[in-house]
Amino acid sequence: MFKFAVLTVSDRCSKGEYEDKSGPAIMGIIKNINGEILRYDIVADAKELIKEKLVEYCDKLQADLVFTTGGTGLGPRDVTPDATVEVAQKTIPGISELIRSEGLKKTKNSALSRGISAIRGNTIIINLPGSPKAVKESLIAILDIIPHALDMLKGMGH
Amino acid sequence: MFKFAVLTVSDRCSKGEYEDKSGPAIMGIIKNINGEILRYDIVADAKELIKEKLVEYCDKLQADLVFTTGGTGLGPRDVTPDATVEVAQKTIPGISELIRSEGLKKTKNSALSRGISAIRGNTIIINLPGSPKAVKESLIAILDIIPHALDMLKGMGH
Amino acid sequence: MFKFAVLTVSDRCSKGEYEDKSGPAIMGIIKNINGEILRYDIVADAKELIKEKLVEYCDKLQADLVFTTGGTGLGPRDVTPDATVEVAQKTIPGISELIRSEGLKKTKNSALSRGISAIRGNTIIINLPGSPKAVKESLIAILDIIPHALDMLKGMGH
Repeated sequence: MFKFAVLTVSDRCSKGEYEDKSGPAIMGIIKNINGEILRYDIVADAKELIKEKLVEYCDKLQADLVFTTGGTGLGPRDVTPDATVEVAQKTIPGISELIRSEGLKKTKNSALSRGISAIRGNTIIINLPGSPKAVKESLIAILDIIPHALDMLKGMGH
Repeated sequence: MFKFAVLTVSDRCSKGEYEDKSGPAIMGIIKNINGEILRYDIVADAKELIKEKLVEYCDKLQADLVFTTGGTGLGPRDVTPDATVEVAQKTIPGISELIRSEGLKKTKNSALSRGISAIRGNTIIINLPGSPKAVKESLIAILDIIPHALDMLKGMGH
Repeated sequence: MFKFAVLTVSDRCSKGEYEDKSGPAIMGIIKNINGEILRYDIVADAKELIKEKLVEYCDKLQADLVFTTGGTGLGPRDVTPDATVEVAQKTIPGISELIRSEGLKKTKNSALSRGISAIRGNTIIINLPGSPKAVKESLIAILDIIPHALDMLKGMGH
C-alpha cells in the first residue's frame, strides 16, 4: 500500500475564508485506490511554507507520493511549482505534460497550469491545479501510471 | 484593453537586408483583437540586446504581454529562449507545449522550435517562431487563452 | 552524411550481466538512413561517466548527433537526463515532448521517461528510453526531423 500526503495551497483556505474542496477530492480518489493518507495540510501561497511542508513529507514522513493542489496559476501569489522545483532533485516533465494535454481536451485554459512533477529522495511530488474539477480530471489522467512510477522509484520497476 | 509589445529577433532584418514580415503579422492579429501596441522593435540575434528590450517592455513600459518572433531555432545565433529565461521569474511551460503540439498538426518541424513562455513582473513573454506562417498558426493556437492568462496575472482570474 | 555516436547507459550492461540490445537497435536504424557511426560505448548509470562520454563525443569527436539509451526512468540510479543537462548549452524541449506524446499512443508509461534533448556546441544530444522497443518507437517518431535539425544547427536550415 502506497503512502500519500496531500497539500492544499491557498491563501483563502488557509485563513478559513473558503472551504477546501480540492484536498478532500484528492483524498477521496486515493482512498478508492487503497492508498494510505499520511498527512493533509492547508498552507498559504507562500514559498517557504510550501517548501517546509514538502520537505517534511519527503524526508521525515517518507511519503511515496505528495499531491499539491493550488498555486499553479499565473498570479503573483502562485508559487507552488517554484517551491517544488527548489526542493526537487529531479523533474519528471512527462507527467505534467500528460496532465496538461489531457486537460486541453476539456478546456484550453489547462495550458495555463504551471504545475511540475518532481522527485525528492524516495518521494514523487505532483502539482495538481486548484479547482476540484481540474484536480479530478488531472488525477484520472495519471492514475494508471502511478503504481509503475512508484515501483520504478523504489528500483523495482525495471 | 491589453497592452502589447512586439520584438522581432533577426540578424538580417535588423541590418535591413530582409523585410520583417513576422512582426507586422503579429501586430495585425493583435489589432484584430483590439489590443494596444506599445512598441515594436527589431534587434539582432544577440542575447544582451534581446534581454535589454524585454526588460524595458516589462519594467518600464509595463506591457501586459510581449511577443517575440525569431531566434527559437537550433542555430548558434538562435538565443531568444535563452535570453527570455534569463530575464524571467517564472515559466509557463503549457503555452509553448500548446504552440508546438498545435504546430505538429501542420509540420513535424514544429518540434524544433525552442520557444518558451514566461512571466516577469506583471508581463507575460511568449516566444513565437520566426516565419510569418508559423507565427500566425502559433498565435491562433493560443489566442483564446490570452485574456484569461492576463486576468490571472493581475490576480483577477481565480 | 551525418556523424552519430551512441551511448548505452546501464549498470547491468556495463558489467556484462546483460546484453545491450538498445544500442545496436539505434545503430541499425542509423545505418538505414545512411549515417556514419563514430563511436558506441556502454557506461554504468553514473553521472560523471555519462558526462565524460558526452563531452568527448561533442567536443573531441565532433559528432553531429548523440543518442543515449537508458537511465531516463525514476530510479535512484537513473541520471542520464541530469548528466545531459549539465553538459548542455541549450535545450530543445519539443523533441522530447514529441517522443513522449508519440509514445503515449502505445503506452501511458511513456510519460515517465524523463529524457531531454539538448545542444552542446555543434552536437545535438537526444536521450532515448531504455528498452529496445521504446528506442525504436522513439526514433521512428523523430527520424523525419533530424536532417532539418542538423541543417539548422550548422546554420544552413533557415
